[in-house]
Amino acid sequence: MEQLRMNIHQWLIEHQCSIIDHLQRLIKAAGHPDQPENHVQDVFINHWNQNNYDVRVHPLNEVDWTKIPILYLAKPVEQLNQLSNVSALIRGSGGGRSLLLNGHVDVVPVGKREQWYVDPFGGELIDGKVYGRGATDMLGGIVSMEYALESIRKCGIKLKGDVTICAVVEEESGGAGSAASVLQGITADAAIIAEPTACQLYPIQQGSQWFRIHIRGKGAHGGTRDLGVSAIEIGMNVIKAIHRLEANRHERGFQAHLHRANGIAYPINIGTFHAGNWPSSVADEAILEGRYGLMPGQSMQAAFAEMEDVILKLNAQDKWLEEHPITLEWYGARWLPNALEAEHPWYDVWKQLPIRLGRDIKAAPWGTDAGWLAHIGNIPVMVYGPGTPEQAHQPNESILISDVILAAEEIAIAMMLWCGYDIDQQE
Amino acid sequence: MEQLRMNIHQWLIEHQCSIIDHLQRLIKAAGHPDQPENHVQDVFINHWNQNNYDVRVHPLNEVDWTKIPILYLAKPVEQLNQLSNVSALIRGSGGGRSLLLNGHVDVVPVGKREQWYVDPFGGELIDGKVYGRGATDMLGGIVSMEYALESIRKCGIKLKGDVTICAVVEEESGGAGSAASVLQGITADAAIIAEPTACQLYPIQQGSQWFRIHIRGKGAHGGTRDLGVSAIEIGMNVIKAIHRLEANRHERGFQAHLHRANGIAYPINIGTFHAGNWPSSVADEAILEGRYGLMPGQSMQAAFAEMEDVILKLNAQDKWLEEHPITLEWYGARWLPNALEAEHPWYDVWKQLPIRLGRDIKAAPWGTDAGWLAHIGNIPVMVYGPGTPEQAHQPNESILISDVILAAEEIAIAMMLWCGYDIDQQE
Repeated sequence: MEQLRMNIHQWLIEHQCSIIDHLQRLIKAAGHPDQPENHVQDVFINHWNQNNYDVRVHPLNEVDWTKIPILYLAKPVEQLNQLSNVSALIRGSGGGRSLLLNGHVDVVPVGKREQWYVDPFGGELIDGKVYGRGATDMLGGIVSMEYALESIRKCGIKLKGDVTICAVVEEESGGAGSAASVLQGITADAAIIAEPTACQLYPIQQGSQWFRIHIRGKGAHGGTRDLGVSAIEIGMNVIKAIHRLEANRHERGFQAHLHRANGIAYPINIGTFHAGNWPSSVADEAILEGRYGLMPGQSMQAAFAEMEDVILKLNAQDKWLEEHPITLEWYGARWLPNALEAEHPWYDVWKQLPIRLGRDIKAAPWGTDAGWLAHIGNIPVMVYGPGTPEQAHQPNESILISDVILAAEEIAIAMMLWCGYDIDQQE
Repeated sequence: MEQLRMNIHQWLIEHQCSIIDHLQRLIKAAGHPDQPENHVQDVFINHWNQNNYDVRVHPLNEVDWTKIPILYLAKPVEQLNQLSNVSALIRGSGGGRSLLLNGHVDVVPVGKREQWYVDPFGGELIDGKVYGRGATDMLGGIVSMEYALESIRKCGIKLKGDVTICAVVEEESGGAGSAASVLQGITADAAIIAEPTACQLYPIQQGSQWFRIHIRGKGAHGGTRDLGVSAIEIGMNVIKAIHRLEANRHERGFQAHLHRANGIAYPINIGTFHAGNWPSSVADEAILEGRYGLMPGQSMQAAFAEMEDVILKLNAQDKWLEEHPITLEWYGARWLPNALEAEHPWYDVWKQLPIRLGRDIKAAPWGTDAGWLAHIGNIPVMVYGPGTPEQAHQPNESILISDVILAAEEIAIAMMLWCGYDIDQQE
């Protein structure tokens, strides 16, 4: 095995120019002004065809979304209908466990252009790093998975289990692509999603759900503000009550070995607070928006009920609120939480990998498509990939090519351990 | 005196149709789409010319605003330059104290038209009330002062002191008109401003100053919100600290006999709170706007210093705020506080008036132009007039004509007591 690992390592090092070139093409395609996701998919289709994979295109317009009522569609169906997932199935020799390599092709917006000192879609190579939107999140991760697969084949290793690589759309808007991929029949005994984890293991991912709180106050002149009811002050009480709930959920959900990097295990973030429209009037309305961190192992309904209960209790404790209740609305983006059980054989595989960095096992403070694969497809998922999470969504996003290669090597070993393998005697 | 009061009362009752007609003209003029203040002034000029007063027009474009640095000009000087105060001086027979009758001709916007069930500028008479924007605040009050003056003359009473009636512009935007009137030489030994007080005495008026608080936080992903610094939470602490200051000022400023109607003597109202722009991000900025209630007897500087000190202390107590200090900006509308001293002879006059309603003495929770007359002109002012403060700035604003007549009668008596009088033997 150690010799095979060395061979894989050697092959990857020798092909780093090809890796860089491929990643640069992907970043450039992601910057296409019209339907960039389709342009990225085209790069994959071409690349996989060159590798002689059995490439399949899965248009989203074939998907019956009503089968996934829990999915929040952040974009109109007409827009989703323009997009496709793309997969390739590489058949094993038989008798092994199958594996899915999942990665998303969509990238977040560039943000403030003036904060970039490189072309956001130039794919420039500087000091061993490739720069551009999506370099880390997560085109670089898909490249690691692709070259892991290719390095195994080129090193004369024949996997026993089937491997499917799937490039999905629309992760950043809530996961419609991965959710659809399960309905499109793309599944396996286990999966890797190569989101940027700095080559750490993220067996657990926090889910999240946006919410909006609407508060009504009673206007009054500022000089007699005691005659009004300030929606701002009610908002402050709401935040205090939400923080108490957050502390309570932290107590229940905190796992020292997973959350030591997180001050709060499952934060409830109040992101916006907008109230009032005149300095000398008592604010008669406030709207708060936030993100509710969801913990694995708790149903959405149970999680929602906890927060709804906080609001109901506030409404019951105050005469004004009894008559003008605070309302809570769940809306917008939703990511399901997910946890790969520590006893699962797929988890075991990762524990057997040679540790070259000070590998860490963490609960991701954000959601991934793993929630969809697990929830709809019942697929156990390990989130692992190159690139640091801090780079994601930032200006001047970049990824170290050495990191892409390291991840490819580790993913290759994990594939071999999971799928089983023979040495191809023909090679 | 009782006979004279009866005569005045009788004259006013007999002229109530004229009072109604005049008030209706004023309300209609206030609705003129182009320079309504000038159109209201034209009604006064015509009316006073008919009374054979010595009418003077005082254009604001003659005013050197740099002489009143404390005044906040809410409108561009070019706009103010289109406007004029209008006054009439009615000379007394000599040997008496002079009096200024001050009222503002500007009215606040109509607001939501659909909330009005009458034409906002129709001046309709329904059940003894005249309806329309400005009916109460304060065209009705000026009418009371005009007819007080006229009733005295028509009842054959000759005042010893001079009386000036002055219709000023731009009270609602902060008092540029009254401030200018002092520079324009319009002054007297005492003044009445007939703002709507429901015929109660308001010897004290709360001043006010708008402020804006700018808070910087540190953005972070909502899932790791403890890595950010929430501008919303800093804002909550700012509000808490401001409320402590408010309580402290209430302790010092509360006078039971004046403030019993006010839960807070000098409120500090936080009217707007705007923070954050993404539910799942930690808010990196918050802007709070409010109104600082100013108490008479305290300089603006001292009042400002108290609030600035609150912010400075917050900044000093926190490492983040030390490096990213909260800033406090004084801006926008400013009304100076004012107090007519309880021992002042002008106050005494009002105490001698016959009490027909359950007259009350109150501190007004809002500012008036009295602050400007007192501060710049050193003129002692009593704020007293018809119409209830609750009607001001509301849809379907109206005033009881019986209230206008009652106020006219009381103002007439106050004028006689203050200026001194003889019975005109010719009449």
